[in-house]
Amino acid sequence: MKIESVDFFYMSMPEVLDIGDGSQDALLVRIRAGGLEGWGECEASPLTSIASYYTPMSHSACKPLKYSVAGKQLNSVDDIYKISLSVHENSSDLLQADHTLSGIDIALWDLLGKKLETPVYELLGYKKAFPKLAYASQLFGDTPEETFEKAVKTRNAGYKAVKFGWGPFGKTSIENDIAQLHAAREGIGADIYLMIDAGTVWNENIDDAQKRLNALKEVNTYWLEEPFFNGALNAYKKLADASSVKLAGGEGCNNFMQAQAMLEYSGIQFVQIDAGRIGGITVAKRVADLAVQKNITYVNHTFTSHLALSASLQPYAGIEKDFICEYPVELKSLAQEIGEEKILPGNEGKIHVPEKAGLGISVNTSALKKYLVDVEIRVKNKVIYQTPEL
Amino acid sequence: MKIESVDFFYMSMPEVLDIGDGSQDALLVRIRAGGLEGWGECEASPLTSIASYYTPMSHSACKPLKYSVAGKQLNSVDDIYKISLSVHENSSDLLQADHTLSGIDIALWDLLGKKLETPVYELLGYKKAFPKLAYASQLFGDTPEETFEKAVKTRNAGYKAVKFGWGPFGKTSIENDIAQLHAAREGIGADIYLMIDAGTVWNENIDDAQKRLNALKEVNTYWLEEPFFNGALNAYKKLADASSVKLAGGEGCNNFMQAQAMLEYSGIQFVQIDAGRIGGITVAKRVADLAVQKNITYVNHTFTSHLALSASLQPYAGIEKDFICEYPVELKSLAQEIGEEKILPGNEGKIHVPEKAGLGISVNTSALKKYLVDVEIRVKNKVIYQTPEL
Repeated sequence: MKIESVDFFYMSMPEVLDIGDGSQDALLVRIRAGGLEGWGECEASPLTSIASYYTPMSHSACKPLKYSVAGKQLNSVDDIYKISLSVHENSSDLLQADHTLSGIDIALWDLLGKKLETPVYELLGYKKAFPKLAYASQLFGDTPEETFEKAVKTRNAGYKAVKFGWGPFGKTSIENDIAQLHAAREGIGADIYLMIDAGTVWNENIDDAQKRLNALKEVNTYWLEEPFFNGALNAYKKLADASSVKLAGGEGCNNFMQAQAMLEYSGIQFVQIDAGRIGGITVAKRVADLAVQKNITYVNHTFTSHLALSASLQPYAGIEKDFICEYPVELKSLAQEIGEEKILPGNEGKIHVPEKAGLGISVNTSALKKYLVDVEIRVKNKVIYQTPEL
Repeated sequence: MKIESVDFFYMSMPEVLDIGDGSQDALLVRIRAGGLEGWGECEASPLTSIASYYTPMSHSACKPLKYSVAGKQLNSVDDIYKISLSVHENSSDLLQADHTLSGIDIALWDLLGKKLETPVYELLGYKKAFPKLAYASQLFGDTPEETFEKAVKTRNAGYKAVKFGWGPFGKTSIENDIAQLHAAREGIGADIYLMIDAGTVWNENIDDAQKRLNALKEVNTYWLEEPFFNGALNAYKKLADASSVKLAGGEGCNNFMQAQAMLEYSGIQFVQIDAGRIGGITVAKRVADLAVQKNITYVNHTFTSHLALSASLQPYAGIEKDFICEYPVELKSLAQEIGEEKILPGNEGKIHVPEKAGLGISVNTSALKKYLVDVEIRVKNKVIYQTPEL
């Protein structure tokens, strides 16, 4: 079947706050072909990504993504690989391309799955999807007291793993960070996995990270995530060598090569990949395969909708040993309403990848209309993008 | 002084062809403060970069670049470092940010240099700017005969170094590539440096590259450039280990960490940095410093205007041993007309960084009006960008 339309929808909460919560806006991609439609979500700046799809060509290696997608054939997995490669070749000098491709690629897998009446993980070659232990991913409270309350609440909700991140952590005093860490551990109790996400707060500064290692160890941190900017291989490696706390990272990778470098040279033991950023399910699966070879645990990165969650789970759904997954628990209403079906933790705090065709998540278009942001882009007095009908 | 305005100008040739010539459009940045103005050029998709500066915030780490630049103080070199760091912290999830920052950072250095009446290379800590041997950078001809003619013409123009790249090279048969290489060498003669730019044509495929090594050696290639996608560390390293032809790469790096990884793990002997892509002069200088430590030769990457050329030369202007520089010789009229002053090869085919304040290149606004592309971006029915007056 031939791709008939590719549409982008920028959605936003009425107010976007200056906090580390990526669920405050969304960029959805709808691709139609053969009477079916597939949906994907970019974990990316919506307006910037839309511009990258429609922009006029700059030169042969800086073409709009439209060039590689519109009107192309979609009948097999190979067709998706072809489109992915074409974007990499024809838009290699367009930096935003990988973020935009991510939502497109996810929508293509969803669409192909629907056509072939197969879940995406099967199209990827997995025979079975294993349940994953959901870690409740949330922001630190503004104070240790708030964090403690959040931790208690999460434990009571039945989660067996919890992650706190961003917020004040790493930015104020070491004493405050230590208090935050202990509040988190005391709130969840001794028997639950605790992960800490530094949200790149120390840039490339190893000393700042090292000062928190003892406290992280004291509270039995399962991993310390993103101490540094994505790709700061040397800083990661030095900290990994000095630390008995395992490191996690990789969510900022926007192509395979960056993830490969993290796997080979950073010393991380968990690689966290967001299919909505790295170029979609196609690229994420390649990273999952390499992680198996390197004996590094693959984990999804997801802080947005259940559509994005399903997409980010597919690439490692069939890898039994990679048992843990990020599960966002503080989604804004926009992100909650994107998917009609919910992926909910069941027994033992585990979640299951949907067994339906494609990604198994239908997009609730009527509920979303209220979040739609009207955008119009004109170049040389010609409208090149206008928010389409949802 | 306080930054009063930051304006973006998208310019384009009337027709943009599907060829590897980045001079067919341009994105200029004009920053005004204290009665002065500085200019920079992004080597980037213009519309996408403009969107990234003005887009609404998505979350705390995905803010528009405007947040880190508009209204900020600019009195010292430290103020530029602060703005650069702020963009990296506040826009770390906005992929296009580094390309957009590049032009902004260059304009800031130009503006500060004008205020302090000092050339940029001096602000960077260099006492002297050494002349660089200009290699005439151009596309292969469509046929070996055309390449031969181009080579003869370039030799006759007095150049002592020549690079051919892109076009059909690597895409058709090995025989054709061999014919192209010999045509290039025969045209320029035995006594001139010859560089070959594969323009990432082999993606990550080492075999395709290896098949050309003998021919590259036969024609005494000074370096083979970008055989693979930027950041394909393993492919680079394997080819470097197997090859007596030195490798060059790095133009696609869009932050310091990527360049650092290339310097440490790829086996390249020349690192090519485009200040218009990597985040500006600030980041490029940091790479130049690391390259000195690693004993790897730093080379500018420039395929656009002389404003961009001056910007890309500054970061290594004071490093005497890094003697060679890219010099575009096939600029479209747009790129030719951007700078009023020209950086022209003199004796022995060498060029000099301008000794005037800032970048030493004035922008010829009246000549450029004809290339200006009208753009308007509306979000929620409010105009967030409209092409400003030049």
